[in-house]
Amino acid sequence: MEGIDRAEIKLTRGVPATEAFPIEEIIACSAQVLRDHGKTLLQYQPGIGFLPLREIIASQAGVTPEQVVLSNGSIQLVTFLAEVLLSPGEVAFVELPSYDRTITTLRRAGVKVVGIPLEEDGIDITFLEEAVKEHHPRLLYLIPDFQNPTGVTTSLAKREAIVSLAKEHNFMVVEDIPYRRLRYQGGDLPTLRDLDAERVIQLSSFSKLLSPGIRVGWMVAPVAIARRVTQIATDTYITPNMLGQGLAYEFLHEGKLENNIARLRRLYAPRLATMLHALSQYLPQASWINSEGGFFVGLTLPEGANSTQVAEKARKKNLVLGNSAGFFADGDGSRFIRLPFCALNEKEIEEAIKRLAFAVQAVNK
Amino acid sequence: MEGIDRAEIKLTRGVPATEAFPIEEIIACSAQVLRDHGKTLLQYQPGIGFLPLREIIASQAGVTPEQVVLSNGSIQLVTFLAEVLLSPGEVAFVELPSYDRTITTLRRAGVKVVGIPLEEDGIDITFLEEAVKEHHPRLLYLIPDFQNPTGVTTSLAKREAIVSLAKEHNFMVVEDIPYRRLRYQGGDLPTLRDLDAERVIQLSSFSKLLSPGIRVGWMVAPVAIARRVTQIATDTYITPNMLGQGLAYEFLHEGKLENNIARLRRLYAPRLATMLHALSQYLPQASWINSEGGFFVGLTLPEGANSTQVAEKARKKNLVLGNSAGFFADGDGSRFIRLPFCALNEKEIEEAIKRLAFAVQAVNK
Repeated sequence: MEGIDRAEIKLTRGVPATEAFPIEEIIACSAQVLRDHGKTLLQYQPGIGFLPLREIIASQAGVTPEQVVLSNGSIQLVTFLAEVLLSPGEVAFVELPSYDRTITTLRRAGVKVVGIPLEEDGIDITFLEEAVKEHHPRLLYLIPDFQNPTGVTTSLAKREAIVSLAKEHNFMVVEDIPYRRLRYQGGDLPTLRDLDAERVIQLSSFSKLLSPGIRVGWMVAPVAIARRVTQIATDTYITPNMLGQGLAYEFLHEGKLENNIARLRRLYAPRLATMLHALSQYLPQASWINSEGGFFVGLTLPEGANSTQVAEKARKKNLVLGNSAGFFADGDGSRFIRLPFCALNEKEIEEAIKRLAFAVQAVNK
Repeated sequence: MEGIDRAEIKLTRGVPATEAFPIEEIIACSAQVLRDHGKTLLQYQPGIGFLPLREIIASQAGVTPEQVVLSNGSIQLVTFLAEVLLSPGEVAFVELPSYDRTITTLRRAGVKVVGIPLEEDGIDITFLEEAVKEHHPRLLYLIPDFQNPTGVTTSLAKREAIVSLAKEHNFMVVEDIPYRRLRYQGGDLPTLRDLDAERVIQLSSFSKLLSPGIRVGWMVAPVAIARRVTQIATDTYITPNMLGQGLAYEFLHEGKLENNIARLRRLYAPRLATMLHALSQYLPQASWINSEGGFFVGLTLPEGANSTQVAEKARKKNLVLGNSAGFFADGDGSRFIRLPFCALNEKEIEEAIKRLAFAVQAVNK
């Protein structure tokens, strides 16, 4: 514990635990897929991506392979979707707060981004109804399972209300589900695409389930949208990176991905439990989401405490906190702190929350 | 020869010979680099790319690693450069004809693309001088070695004239050199960046030297431009694909890339020789560039023959030709045909040119 007391702890980026990467399995799967599909993986290929991987994802999603588009990570698919679905100046809704990179990406495409306040069970539906009438959005982007940055999971009732409003007011829903398989307790809810396959576009990736460095994200969408996204992808980079796609395919094909996800759940579940317990113990005056999975717990500081000031105090105790402002498309995030727990071990998590509590106390003095 | 006579032959895309991919070496290098650098390659990384690979490229180019940006193929770097160097409506010059994907990419960025006629030793410098005064371009994009689609190599005198004009009239030069190392005869000329490192941005990739499917392109640029491109890359995809970069690094680090390039030269040199000989034999009435390397010979049909009509006739003889129009930013490409020779063996090349000659003759009747 002495070592931890002095060492810097970062509670900033939502990255997987490096020690969780199954390097030897990745080496074996790379070799196997290159032996079986090397001439395909090493050549230029259609911009939609590696057919055998698209076939498995399509089969799991109950769609045809032409509805599955693979890309170099899922965030670039957000750029492509912005080009397909929105013209500059049109409005997209996101949760408030939401994933900062999506907000940045939509704004770079010239889209006006409006935040819909997030409650403990998903966005505020009454607020959404009013905002739809005011802004006539072309799409709503959300992360329904273990949301980034809060950890919130959208309830079934709200999922149904969202797709119903989307149909009524003719906007598309983009559900981003990179954390969905990382559930540490409780049971799965239907995806929004399960509720309305014509109105909902699903994004996900292997970044949290296998490795971010392999850059394999995917989209499941209606055929017309998948085709338009593919054309833009082709114009952008000709071919997505095939080695990562081959590797992901081999993990799925051999049934190794399920084992890896089970292993990650065993690794991350106690980290989340430790985080929630430490918050109860050291910061009972704050509030947070009792997330059941994913990478993050979203913390709201007690009134009077400001996250920037807390971050400054924490820095002096060698605890590095992330900047909250980027998550808030509009509205006030000054009391919010995202706590990513996956890349820290239990001792580091407990120590981090002790330091955080110290910083909050120092600010409130 | 019977089999070849009937089989379809494609003279369309500029892709490497699939049989040239060193699959077993790629398997071995992937395993080695994952053992040595797996925790880095599998994690999120800075948008600029894998440092060990940037260090080797920087050392070979005589620059610092912060001047080297890696990306998922080089064409996406053209998008990033357009965003950094040009505002919508501003003018970029390209060779006439030029690489069709670059023209498309610049136009998608809202840039006005103007073609500078290409002669046997590079662009027409007199035309360039006049066009500079008329259009005030922000950049000139060219492929000085074994140009796509013509095979032209820009002479030293023209290289010097180009960088001199760039300095005088304050525009940047982007030299794309993916084929430079694939010289089958003659000697290297200095790169444009060798002549003016402040004014010239160099793009290249491993697509033609190792594999396109690994998607590893790079840029060597002044530091300020490299930083701005890196920021846009990070906002676009967070991290480029690391497996491909690790593999390319291992090939360079172990000295295997030089062996592979030597092997490709031995494979491709007789294909180019066969192409040039077959043209002399079967199409003496046409004209073409006696390219010394790369992937392409650019053919100009005899007067009166039209490439679209020739393509239709060729199709009936099971020879598929590419569309020429995309290479011509402006001006008339109706007598031009790009002949990619690398992915065909010598028998296929000879048969292809026989069929092409038949098609030309049929049109001229």
